[in-house]
Amino acid sequence: MKRTTVTLGAALIAASALLSAPAAAQFAKPEDAVKYRKSVMTLMSAHVGRIAPVVRGDRPFNAAEVQANAALVETLATLPWSAYAPGTDKGDTRVKADIWSSPDKFKGYSEQLQKAAAALSAAARSGSLDQVKAAFGETGRTCKGCHDDFRKD
Amino acid sequence: MKRTTVTLGAALIAASALLSAPAAAQFAKPEDAVKYRKSVMTLMSAHVGRIAPVVRGDRPFNAAEVQANAALVETLATLPWSAYAPGTDKGDTRVKADIWSSPDKFKGYSEQLQKAAAALSAAARSGSLDQVKAAFGETGRTCKGCHDDFRKD
Repeated sequence: MKRTTVTLGAALIAASALLSAPAAAQFAKPEDAVKYRKSVMTLMSAHVGRIAPVVRGDRPFNAAEVQANAALVETLATLPWSAYAPGTDKGDTRVKADIWSSPDKFKGYSEQLQKAAAALSAAARSGSLDQVKAAFGETGRTCKGCHDDFRKD
Repeated sequence: MKRTTVTLGAALIAASALLSAPAAAQFAKPEDAVKYRKSVMTLMSAHVGRIAPVVRGDRPFNAAEVQANAALVETLATLPWSAYAPGTDKGDTRVKADIWSSPDKFKGYSEQLQKAAAALSAAARSGSLDQVKAAFGETGRTCKGCHDDFRKD
């Protein structure tokens, strides 16, 4: 029994590691990687954008709704990183080449966002709007930091 | 205690219902809905596409990898439907107007895909490649049916 006992957390970490396998193995062409990561960002933006008006007080707090959106943001936050492979700076993308000259900084943001999104999801599960507000702020700051450093205007 | 006992299945159904709220409430402009649903399809295609070579026998069966991809497909399959709102047939989309003249047929496909994707995910969790193959075939047939009926070439 012990051998098959795996926590959900460990399974998620394993899944995340597998999904972050080298981009070369996952995308046939550089433009596929660009399209993939932009799709992740579109969905991330949409679901963060459904939590934002609640945090601002412009929309009533529906705990289940925020929880569903935050869970999606948590999942999406695990996805885009391997799609920022070297050679994917061509075509329809605003990525800055700095992303490849500062790999540790980029990796730092990737870890920070996954942590912030997991915290947002946990806050949403707690049902406390105050916790959601704090975690949402931290998530937004991480998004902005990475965009400021690695995305062209 | 009884009042707080909710199965994960029920929570997922609730989340899915909330995420399927009227598009009018979710998208500021028709083109936002188009971009959203196309992003879902891009990610769905990418993750189905990572299972396909395993099913064909062109890539070794790594159960954890297939499980992670199938879980994502299951989540993604809940998302696009509300973005096919009336008035979203303009711009960069191949949607056929038939989607709005045959709402029951479209709803049927939406339910069929979510069921097939959940079955694929369950098959992947079972660790049986044979089960994955069967469930993958059913998922692919559902994708194709809906695309044949409601997507322009």
